[in-house]
Amino acid sequence: MSTSQPRKALSISNCNPHVKEAQYAVRGELAVRSEEYRAKLANGEGKDLPFDSVIAANIGNPQQLDQKPITFFRQVASLLENPLLLEHQDVLINNLGYKKDVIERAQWLLSEVKSIGAYSQSQGAPGIRKSVADFIERRDGYPSSFTNVYLSNGASSGVNTLLHILCAKPETGILVPIPQYPLYTASLSVLNARCVPYYLEESQAWGTDLQAIRDSYEKAVSEGTDVKAIVVINPGNPTGASLSPEDIRAVLKFAAEKGLVVMADEVYQTNVFIGKFVSFKKALRDLQKEEPGKYDHIELASLHSVSKGMVGECGHRGGYFELVGFDPQVAEQIYKFISIQLCPPVIGQCIVELMVNPPKEGEPSHELYKKEYDGIFNALKERAYALFEAFKSMEGVECQTPAGSMYLFPTINLPPKALEQAKKEGRKPDEFYCFRLLDATGICVVPGSGFGQKEGTLHFRTTFLAPGTEWVNRISKFHKDFFDEFR
Amino acid sequence: MSTSQPRKALSISNCNPHVKEAQYAVRGELAVRSEEYRAKLANGEGKDLPFDSVIAANIGNPQQLDQKPITFFRQVASLLENPLLLEHQDVLINNLGYKKDVIERAQWLLSEVKSIGAYSQSQGAPGIRKSVADFIERRDGYPSSFTNVYLSNGASSGVNTLLHILCAKPETGILVPIPQYPLYTASLSVLNARCVPYYLEESQAWGTDLQAIRDSYEKAVSEGTDVKAIVVINPGNPTGASLSPEDIRAVLKFAAEKGLVVMADEVYQTNVFIGKFVSFKKALRDLQKEEPGKYDHIELASLHSVSKGMVGECGHRGGYFELVGFDPQVAEQIYKFISIQLCPPVIGQCIVELMVNPPKEGEPSHELYKKEYDGIFNALKERAYALFEAFKSMEGVECQTPAGSMYLFPTINLPPKALEQAKKEGRKPDEFYCFRLLDATGICVVPGSGFGQKEGTLHFRTTFLAPGTEWVNRISKFHKDFFDEFR
Repeated sequence: MSTSQPRKALSISNCNPHVKEAQYAVRGELAVRSEEYRAKLANGEGKDLPFDSVIAANIGNPQQLDQKPITFFRQVASLLENPLLLEHQDVLINNLGYKKDVIERAQWLLSEVKSIGAYSQSQGAPGIRKSVADFIERRDGYPSSFTNVYLSNGASSGVNTLLHILCAKPETGILVPIPQYPLYTASLSVLNARCVPYYLEESQAWGTDLQAIRDSYEKAVSEGTDVKAIVVINPGNPTGASLSPEDIRAVLKFAAEKGLVVMADEVYQTNVFIGKFVSFKKALRDLQKEEPGKYDHIELASLHSVSKGMVGECGHRGGYFELVGFDPQVAEQIYKFISIQLCPPVIGQCIVELMVNPPKEGEPSHELYKKEYDGIFNALKERAYALFEAFKSMEGVECQTPAGSMYLFPTINLPPKALEQAKKEGRKPDEFYCFRLLDATGICVVPGSGFGQKEGTLHFRTTFLAPGTEWVNRISKFHKDFFDEFR
Repeated sequence: MSTSQPRKALSISNCNPHVKEAQYAVRGELAVRSEEYRAKLANGEGKDLPFDSVIAANIGNPQQLDQKPITFFRQVASLLENPLLLEHQDVLINNLGYKKDVIERAQWLLSEVKSIGAYSQSQGAPGIRKSVADFIERRDGYPSSFTNVYLSNGASSGVNTLLHILCAKPETGILVPIPQYPLYTASLSVLNARCVPYYLEESQAWGTDLQAIRDSYEKAVSEGTDVKAIVVINPGNPTGASLSPEDIRAVLKFAAEKGLVVMADEVYQTNVFIGKFVSFKKALRDLQKEEPGKYDHIELASLHSVSKGMVGECGHRGGYFELVGFDPQVAEQIYKFISIQLCPPVIGQCIVELMVNPPKEGEPSHELYKKEYDGIFNALKERAYALFEAFKSMEGVECQTPAGSMYLFPTINLPPKALEQAKKEGRKPDEFYCFRLLDATGICVVPGSGFGQKEGTLHFRTTFLAPGTEWVNRISKFHKDFFDEFR
């Protein structure tokens, strides 16, 4: 046997440095440890742990946390998976509770995709894209064409596509809100392009601050960055904010002034507790109507997903983006890029169609659909406020009123002794807090540093998806003990 | 109204040049035109066309071409989509023809993933990965661990992941067979890395030619390329080849000598008509057993998919890759990279499980499964040989005996007048031929230039998935007319 082993081709020192630089805390070390706890408990080896269940509050994954899927969606999907069931319509209706509109929708979707086991067009099945365009028209009151709609593999792959097209060189910069969902910074690292951070205003319910955007832009340009686009996440992730129409218009005007593509991540558009969601598309069309000619050159890409809202079908990986005002030659490059990966999952495309075109009033499945939808909405809102109340009562914690999305992002003011201990353990202070929380309670949240936060501030992001309120008490108790230890 | 419109931010001249460079002919201009013909015929506007149906022979998409899905897979999938059906087992069994093993499998899969609407672990659900590892063990007779199995979004996303990790700088080179499935060259363009082409030997049934590999490697190194990996597609796409165990061993020994990662694209592993499929993993373990210590450092990634074989579930976007011998720190980077896109479609993961663990002999669903599986296999083989016979009888056409995968890749020797006409129209000669074929017959194939071919040779790739033989006659007739026109 040879004694000196030849070197491996691939090592941590010679693999892609841009992948190495990327950070994605949502599924990082904390999430990995929480999965280990979960496995331990499942195997009956968790008797030494101070908790009896793991709560994954680190990620917006409703159906992992007991949210039930919407019956209409899944009934249709079951027929798409096994179209032979359509030969037994009497059994479906009489014995299994399927309604006529379920059967009709499945038949129509099958006529559009032929089989969900077949590749579709790379942009997505045309009939489904038409349904998406109809939805956008109804939502905004302005026309939309299916030729500008691109179905995607969740919204994440849409972001990946758009950033691939935008990032032309290492000097390319993209304005990204801070705090942000780390998909953006991670993708920009992998693409070897520059994140141009702009801070959201915590004291203004985490709204956009135009002066902060302008300052970041000017600073980046002065450093030689070619700023090409601005990302806005509305409703906000991780902030839970819901932008005012004024904020949206200000961003669009700034983009028009500087010649920036606008990427509007609107995956939480139905998760709004305060006010009414206004899409960037509608705000843009309003502006264009008010001042004809002045905003016609704006390029807007807006993204949506089946993973969030009351749908919560994360595992189906469905989503879409709509392009507004893009050069047709650029759209051709986008088409080619997505064609390399063939097509988004076809059953996910069908779930997109069901999301944008649910049962209407008077249709057989409407009553149950509405009951389920409203039930999920109200439960989310209730839990958001229960958590908010708990945070308000905790020492050193400040939290904005829940307004949208699935998250709260409280500030934590940690005592100096805790900061010292974190330093000793080689951890960022918010990370240190979150590990302590996980080890003590089984609740997994994500430190604010995973999303970015203003220098000197500390936060964590938690979803409010987990059922019940018992886990909220676990946090309160942990927090008190933590402060008692380090105060 | 303003008269001078401000410039758009994004144009063909400033978008990502590496995306622009990428070429992906499988879904290129020919495919787009064929879709236009299909839409025309569907709308009743195709009366002026000289054909009444479009045959998509450009892409391995069985269920678009009337291949029926395997019943067992889809019955299970229907229960995963609508688990409420499991409350009516008597109806499922007595009225709908579901067997007990269908119900049990669905229950087990649901216990593993909780809901197919929930995100799974980024690497894929652990129970499904265990099932994949068991399959690999049974197939190869060597151990496999689920910790090294990564479920993916079709095999394409696995290739994308691996190339992302490998391509560290513009000088990084990857040995890619020519002709190849253009996913490889397109991805390398996007990643701004170098494709190091090595030619397959058409006269040797499109086998690998070690001297050709060695020459390409040496030439690339002398030009400053840092060659990091070698890609092998077995069975071959687009060639239809099935590699001999000797060829496989030779590639592995070469990789060991030069310190190259081996990427084995084995998505057609069950589409083998001549000989028996031998995996790179088995060949590697055999070598390691024969000469202990000498090959321990080899890094192998082997890929599989639910899109091909007799499964043909392209639209479900399921696949996996297994890593052998990778540095754990590199594997960590792979995990982080895939986590940015959250997880592969969960129903696709379940289809992977069903593919690797189909009903066994004696189980209730086995008889139908075997009948369907064998029926698809035999029909594919029959059509492959029918097409092969047709090609043999055509003037100026040479074709290797069908051995594996879903494709034939005949050489076409076009008359000088056809070459001149192609030049006049600004098209490559094989592209010119394929456009003529599409316009005359509605049959869409892909020119050899889309996969790469030796200087001075011309080919096209066709699948043999379309049912019946009428379309084969359409090709023969077109070919004769084409030669009559240009001879």
